[in-house]
Amino acid sequence: MILADLEEARDKIRFGRSRKSMVMTEQQKLVTAYHEAGHAIITLLEEKADPLHKVTIIPRGMALGATMSLPERDRLGMSLGEIEARLRVCFGGRIAEELIFKDITSGAQNDIEQATNLARLMVTKWGMSEAVGPVSYVEGEEHLFLGREVTRHVNHSEETAQAIDREVRRFIDEAYKDAVKHLTDNMDGLHAVSKALMRYETLSGEECQAVLDGADIDTLRPEPPAPTAEESAPAAANRPATDKPLPEGGTPAEGFAY
Amino acid sequence: MILADLEEARDKIRFGRSRKSMVMTEQQKLVTAYHEAGHAIITLLEEKADPLHKVTIIPRGMALGATMSLPERDRLGMSLGEIEARLRVCFGGRIAEELIFKDITSGAQNDIEQATNLARLMVTKWGMSEAVGPVSYVEGEEHLFLGREVTRHVNHSEETAQAIDREVRRFIDEAYKDAVKHLTDNMDGLHAVSKALMRYETLSGEECQAVLDGADIDTLRPEPPAPTAEESAPAAANRPATDKPLPEGGTPAEGFAY
Amino acid sequence: MILADLEEARDKIRFGRSRKSMVMTEQQKLVTAYHEAGHAIITLLEEKADPLHKVTIIPRGMALGATMSLPERDRLGMSLGEIEARLRVCFGGRIAEELIFKDITSGAQNDIEQATNLARLMVTKWGMSEAVGPVSYVEGEEHLFLGREVTRHVNHSEETAQAIDREVRRFIDEAYKDAVKHLTDNMDGLHAVSKALMRYETLSGEECQAVLDGADIDTLRPEPPAPTAEESAPAAANRPATDKPLPEGGTPAEGFAY
Amino acid sequence: MILADLEEARDKIRFGRSRKSMVMTEQQKLVTAYHEAGHAIITLLEEKADPLHKVTIIPRGMALGATMSLPERDRLGMSLGEIEARLRVCFGGRIAEELIFKDITSGAQNDIEQATNLARLMVTKWGMSEAVGPVSYVEGEEHLFLGREVTRHVNHSEETAQAIDREVRRFIDEAYKDAVKHLTDNMDGLHAVSKALMRYETLSGEECQAVLDGADIDTLRPEPPAPTAEESAPAAANRPATDKPLPEGGTPAEGFAY
Amino acid sequence: MILADLEEARDKIRFGRSRKSMVMTEQQKLVTAYHEAGHAIITLLEEKADPLHKVTIIPRGMALGATMSLPERDRLGMSLGEIEARLRVCFGGRIAEELIFKDITSGAQNDIEQATNLARLMVTKWGMSEAVGPVSYVEGEEHLFLGREVTRHVNHSEETAQAIDREVRRFIDEAYKDAVKHLTDNMDGLHAVSKALMRYETLSGEECQAVLDGADIDTLRPEPPAPTAEESAPAAANRPATDKPLPEGGTPAEGFAY
Amino acid sequence: MILADLEEARDKIRFGRSRKSMVMTEQQKLVTAYHEAGHAIITLLEEKADPLHKVTIIPRGMALGATMSLPERDRLGMSLGEIEARLRVCFGGRIAEELIFKDITSGAQNDIEQATNLARLMVTKWGMSEAVGPVSYVEGEEHLFLGREVTRHVNHSEETAQAIDREVRRFIDEAYKDAVKHLTDNMDGLHAVSKALMRYETLSGEECQAVLDGADIDTLRPEPPAPTAEESAPAAANRPATDKPLPEGGTPAEGFAY
Repeated sequence: MILADLEEARDKIRFGRSRKSMVMTEQQKLVTAYHEAGHAIITLLEEKADPLHKVTIIPRGMALGATMSLPERDRLGMSLGEIEARLRVCFGGRIAEELIFKDITSGAQNDIEQATNLARLMVTKWGMSEAVGPVSYVEGEEHLFLGREVTRHVNHSEETAQAIDREVRRFIDEAYKDAVKHLTDNMDGLHAVSKALMRYETLSGEECQAVLDGADIDTLRPEPPAPTAEESAPAAANRPATDKPLPEGGTPAEGFAY
Repeated sequence: MILADLEEARDKIRFGRSRKSMVMTEQQKLVTAYHEAGHAIITLLEEKADPLHKVTIIPRGMALGATMSLPERDRLGMSLGEIEARLRVCFGGRIAEELIFKDITSGAQNDIEQATNLARLMVTKWGMSEAVGPVSYVEGEEHLFLGREVTRHVNHSEETAQAIDREVRRFIDEAYKDAVKHLTDNMDGLHAVSKALMRYETLSGEECQAVLDGADIDTLRPEPPAPTAEESAPAAANRPATDKPLPEGGTPAEGFAY
Repeated sequence: MILADLEEARDKIRFGRSRKSMVMTEQQKLVTAYHEAGHAIITLLEEKADPLHKVTIIPRGMALGATMSLPERDRLGMSLGEIEARLRVCFGGRIAEELIFKDITSGAQNDIEQATNLARLMVTKWGMSEAVGPVSYVEGEEHLFLGREVTRHVNHSEETAQAIDREVRRFIDEAYKDAVKHLTDNMDGLHAVSKALMRYETLSGEECQAVLDGADIDTLRPEPPAPTAEESAPAAANRPATDKPLPEGGTPAEGFAY
Repeated sequence: MILADLEEARDKIRFGRSRKSMVMTEQQKLVTAYHEAGHAIITLLEEKADPLHKVTIIPRGMALGATMSLPERDRLGMSLGEIEARLRVCFGGRIAEELIFKDITSGAQNDIEQATNLARLMVTKWGMSEAVGPVSYVEGEEHLFLGREVTRHVNHSEETAQAIDREVRRFIDEAYKDAVKHLTDNMDGLHAVSKALMRYETLSGEECQAVLDGADIDTLRPEPPAPTAEESAPAAANRPATDKPLPEGGTPAEGFAY
Repeated sequence: MILADLEEARDKIRFGRSRKSMVMTEQQKLVTAYHEAGHAIITLLEEKADPLHKVTIIPRGMALGATMSLPERDRLGMSLGEIEARLRVCFGGRIAEELIFKDITSGAQNDIEQATNLARLMVTKWGMSEAVGPVSYVEGEEHLFLGREVTRHVNHSEETAQAIDREVRRFIDEAYKDAVKHLTDNMDGLHAVSKALMRYETLSGEECQAVLDGADIDTLRPEPPAPTAEESAPAAANRPATDKPLPEGGTPAEGFAY
Repeated sequence: MILADLEEARDKIRFGRSRKSMVMTEQQKLVTAYHEAGHAIITLLEEKADPLHKVTIIPRGMALGATMSLPERDRLGMSLGEIEARLRVCFGGRIAEELIFKDITSGAQNDIEQATNLARLMVTKWGMSEAVGPVSYVEGEEHLFLGREVTRHVNHSEETAQAIDREVRRFIDEAYKDAVKHLTDNMDGLHAVSKALMRYETLSGEECQAVLDGADIDTLRPEPPAPTAEESAPAAANRPATDKPLPEGGTPAEGFAY
């Protein structure tokens, strides 16, 4: 099917080759399933988050799983509300691990980095912190473009640096707290989505919503589809051949993976 | 018409290609209309601001809209009063969003950066802060010219850096407060200009002034003009074919856009 | 006349092409006239300042006007008294604007930078601050010579950096205060020199001194001379054809202009 | 034997050539034996540590000995519990020296660096410190890739830097304290493993566990095997010809050595 | 005469071309004479200073004058006493100006830099400050050698940087105070040496000592010698043809000039 | 003799050419003799110091003298006790100068740098300071390898930098105090070794020990040996032709010289 092939091609470019033959212990798969379920559920619960496209625990490149949203407004600027929703989604994975396994892993590194980058932009570029004000601050940055180095050095005082750090921390801590509440309020859903991921490995946004709404996981799909050529490895046996094709007009290449 | 073509050429160079086919939701257009109306109204209200040339919500390059002034004294130095007016204009967009939608967006990033750069120049180069005094301070800067890197490192103390940061913040906060007052005092005008932008997409400075003065939006223009070749896309149907030509002697390429 | 041509050539090299056709409003010309008159009068009043050579409000390159002194000892080191005189001259322009128009402009940027550089040298290289002592401090500097970067990083403590900043500020503030006194004590002269500049555009040091001494501006020059080729633009009509030639032995290219 | 050759090849690549002819004093061998025994015993005692593969006091490259674990989850992220176990293993060597010889050596430099790097990642990238929070911090880093320099400068405040340093120190100090407890609780085992290392030079993980469990060292191996070609030097006489071959599916090249 | 030619060659290399035709005012010559006399007298008074070779007020390169010593131990390390003597000599020039003219000039820049460099070495490399201790500190340095940049960044704390700055300041202030005492105790000598320099332009160490001891300046030299080719300019009329030749074994190229 | 030639070759590579013709005053030779005697005596007194190989006051390269030890464990890591012994040896030279001449010289620069480097490693890499803990800290470093710059920037807080500086200072101050005690307790030995050095210029470790133990200096060697070719300069007349050859198995090129 053409759309599934396109989606595969896109995912390969963004995340690397699918690593279906990678040996993961059941425990690792379970941790990953809860991690991705955490991201997915908060994505569904947050009105201002971009719509959930799909969630998967098939390893690809360096990632053990992924939760993808369809972007709608990404290029056109984001509102404070949308950014805060995204911060909460970022922390869904880590929090799910913490709630279920009472242990956390280094696997949230990218989520934390993404959330921090957003929070720093809110404070230093987008004037979204009242304490710091609508002032633009240059932070230590660097680009390499055509072999030329562009270095910008911090030009503000230590006092300002502290105010920025505190506000970044405040945005992060609030998002974290809100995300904890989302998941503790939806523990049944978290277990259900995780269970569905362990069974099907990949869920579309609609399937994920259905599971969260209480759908019977066993009857979520009428019958397991025949595997595609690349998916013919035994490990892929219970995986649906057709990931949900992209809705018209959407450009999944701008999605959001955790 | 020659002048409109020249204006189109200039705008293309400054802001990028007109993106009339770009899919914007009505909500996005509305946010943009209020944002630009905010800039435009403060430009009209501020005696020392450069005269308003035109305001538009036609996306171009990375910008969703633009408010353009005609420069008069830009190259010849600016007075403190003119700079303060410009700072207030900078914040008009963000404040309009905040007043109308109770949410803010990352779209004010450039406005905030522009205001911050001006305020830093006032404090560190132009001796306009009494607290910091008529002293020139080098801030972390960098240029790349013909492959050579010129790096200037800060040479003042942390104590001075704090004084500078506080004065920058003071200029910014005062301008912000003044801009809030301008718009809250002119809420009817803000709604009217925004409505006119939603209808005509582009307004000349005179049209904008007329709307602010209470002119009937429906009768602002006798009839919608025929679209030019480039504007023949359906989305451009209600847009006037002729943006107001430039007044003689003016050089809009040196204008000031928000 | 040969000497006038030489002077024109020198000024073109130092300040850029004369921009007599540049459209300046009367207000801009007036602000410039007072700015340059401020520099000129303090140059005349300060015994230890280098002798005033000429003052002009004809735009040249990026400058709206210029006040030029003849150097005598520049290359051979300056005494504390001479440096302090120079600092006061630096601030004459900004202060004249402030006194007359109750507004200040960004046009004093170069004056402020020049004064700051001198004050930093006094404190960090020339041992002229008792508080900091006869110690040499390296400040962040950079040179580009034949493509090689020479970067020197600050090697002193924050405590020392604060002491340096305070002493720089003290020298600047004292010079500023003295310059304010000079001009408030000579408001009549300031008005007179400014008026003469509006009329003749360029004054020699002697003419400027005569005006400051109360000479009748109308009879300062017997008759307006015929314009040279380059000066034949209408705006130059009331300008003397011959700027005062340089005194023998003087090398104006090493002069000091504000 | 093929597997032993592969293991030799791998060790040569990771640690350098075996230096069996290197002259070590008995005292140096003893210090090394206790150092490695310290690492090995904590590896065995820590449930969440990767399984012990082998421990040796044969010098190789710059290392006087090595304790090697088989990785299981290294590439797939580590949990907080696994990281803390690894920190404790890191300090086992230094602590054994301290307990037995009341002196410490510079030989723990790599262990300390490894532990510090892990602790810094926990605090600045993996969000594992409550005091610092789930925030990502850039620390001074550098890469050289294809001749291009990528420099990232610290972008946080001194206040944050102090919080990071304190948390890094806390993780390290706790791991150190726990490791001290492990070894003081197992002094008999420490002496026994060290004695076995002095006798056999290399122990497999199972042999090491057996010694820790009280096995008779003299009868640990039925008879000394014939030395391989490379091991034919006299010093290798009492060394087993076959290090334990790698278990199937394991990839020791990705192991973790102290 | 060969030796005089060698000396001229050496001076040209070290200080640049003799600039006997340079127009100096009598006042400038007088300031220079007192400046050099200040250096010379302290050199003569300080037992541990290197022996005075000659002192001159003939401009050369960028210097208006010079005081030169013969090195004896330079390459072999200096004792604390020798360094302190050198610091005092450094400040002799500036102090003489201050005592005589009640004004100071920027001409002491090199003296101040030389003294500061010595004092920093005493504190950060030579362990000569009790407060800082026998610890070596790296300060921001840079070398350019064969196009390679070697940058060493400060590796100590701000606290240490403050201690270093204070000790550098203490060594400098003590040397300054001692040098003031030397010259105020020898005002007659200062006037006499300065007068001799105004008359002969260059004095040998012995001549300088004689003048300090009260010799009659008029009879210091029996008759003005015939000028050499290069010295045939009128300004050189009263200058001795033969600067004192170098003592055997001395290598003036390694001398120490102020 | 072959061994002496090898030793000469090695010293030439490590320290530069022997400079027997270098003109040193008797005073300089005496200062050097006491400086080296200070190093040598502490080397002999410290049990954990590497064995003394030889001590010499023959200038070589930039060094006026040298005290050399035979390394035993250098490459294999050093214990805390060995490092502390080495720190004390480092300060022996400076302290001897101070005790005897009541003056100190810049000649201890390398000793101070060596001691500081060791103390910094103890604190920042080897976990030997309880106050700083077993944490690894990156200090500002730089390498130039094959034209590539590797810069590592400090990544710890100012608070930590202060703790490091204080601990470095503590290790240094304790070693200094201990070294002072060693020499004040052995003033007779210091005078004797110094006297022997003035007479023979080079002493072997055994000769030095004998002198320290009270041997008659005059009869230390039966007769002055015939000079080798290179040593045939007059200044070498009283120097033994055969420096003590290296003990078997020793590799002096890896020794430790002060």
